[in-house]
Amino acid sequence: MSENENISGADAAGKKVAVILSGCGVYDGSEIYEAVITLLCLDQNKAQVQCFAPNVDQLHVVNHLTGQVAEGESRNVLVEAARIARGEVQELSSANADDFDALIIPGGFGAAKNLSDFAIKGAGLTVNPEVLALTKAMHKAAKPVGLVCIAPVMSAAIFGEGVECTIGNDPDTAAAIGETGGVHVDTNVQEIHVDEDNKLVTTSAYMLAGRVSDAAMGIGKLVSKVLELA
Amino acid sequence: MSENENISGADAAGKKVAVILSGCGVYDGSEIYEAVITLLCLDQNKAQVQCFAPNVDQLHVVNHLTGQVAEGESRNVLVEAARIARGEVQELSSANADDFDALIIPGGFGAAKNLSDFAIKGAGLTVNPEVLALTKAMHKAAKPVGLVCIAPVMSAAIFGEGVECTIGNDPDTAAAIGETGGVHVDTNVQEIHVDEDNKLVTTSAYMLAGRVSDAAMGIGKLVSKVLELA
Repeated sequence: MSENENISGADAAGKKVAVILSGCGVYDGSEIYEAVITLLCLDQNKAQVQCFAPNVDQLHVVNHLTGQVAEGESRNVLVEAARIARGEVQELSSANADDFDALIIPGGFGAAKNLSDFAIKGAGLTVNPEVLALTKAMHKAAKPVGLVCIAPVMSAAIFGEGVECTIGNDPDTAAAIGETGGVHVDTNVQEIHVDEDNKLVTTSAYMLAGRVSDAAMGIGKLVSKVLELA
Repeated sequence: MSENENISGADAAGKKVAVILSGCGVYDGSEIYEAVITLLCLDQNKAQVQCFAPNVDQLHVVNHLTGQVAEGESRNVLVEAARIARGEVQELSSANADDFDALIIPGGFGAAKNLSDFAIKGAGLTVNPEVLALTKAMHKAAKPVGLVCIAPVMSAAIFGEGVECTIGNDPDTAAAIGETGGVHVDTNVQEIHVDEDNKLVTTSAYMLAGRVSDAAMGIGKLVSKVLELA
């Protein structure tokens, strides 16, 4: 895990970071590896972290063994996010941008199903109002935001036209980001893209990763850059 | 994450490691941070990993936001473990010790509720027959086993009387391990204990950890030692 050694623990110590979770599991919630590695890197850099999630039903419950939607089953995003947060998660409606120096949203289909409706509407997506309110407030206060994996599809909705982001190199998703008004920049799995003007940091993670250690390298760099900008 | 730098990737490359999961969430399944960090450290050391879980109902479904048992709700250990494994998990009954060089079991209440009944019976615990068969077969073949957090309460049932292990320093759990015939050794959260004769490596992780980075240090050392012994 030596890729994170260049992060200055001293500089980052005490930075307050909000993390928005979208459930617990790649196919209907937060991608678990991305969420845990984000929280681990933040803690290794001595940041103070508070997890949030919207108190809404998941769009789907997916059986992660079969990949099929579990028809008739219902789970709550906040309650399932509490699995990742070991209970330490608050309702997103209670989050205040004034209390934080930075914000990070891990990926997983939850970002495209529960935090936005990108999974259904593609480029015509709308973003959950609580997610939009907090991210826009962070942006207005010139505080950095990190978006991981598929979460960058929300970039233009949050930051406006011309914002630069990456989800790796998937052409369909990149084209959809272009249709929303965003500017997609191709990257490999171990890289990040930084829109300095918007203080937006993005990385592809499991949009590209075949191995958890590859995702960890990109996420480590994202966390480092977000804390540096904070 | 520099604590893992002393692991020799070259030596560990290609080692085949089975990981037994017990669900997805600290209160009714695998502790998610412990499971993910175990998988991350194994991947960073270029081990080949296969996750397994028993195809049984969880003892409980716990609402991780409230900490309360969700009465009337039922979830399957294998299906929920698939959330951590991104679908790549097999039925534990299909696991063969001949196919692996080492075995690791992360903690969480799932180890004490779904892999054994320690949460109910304490020192009178019994271990799930499939867990017992695989762990005993690994032991018989002189292959290393790593047990994390509360999972070491199964040590004497697997390895027999006199086996040394650690769950940190909780006196009640340590006493229970003594009653089962095991020998508990107090450790701090960043340490491991190694029973060289039995090739058993244990660490306390979230039996003691207040921070995910502390748990990661102990787990990193455990993974390193297990691979060294393999």
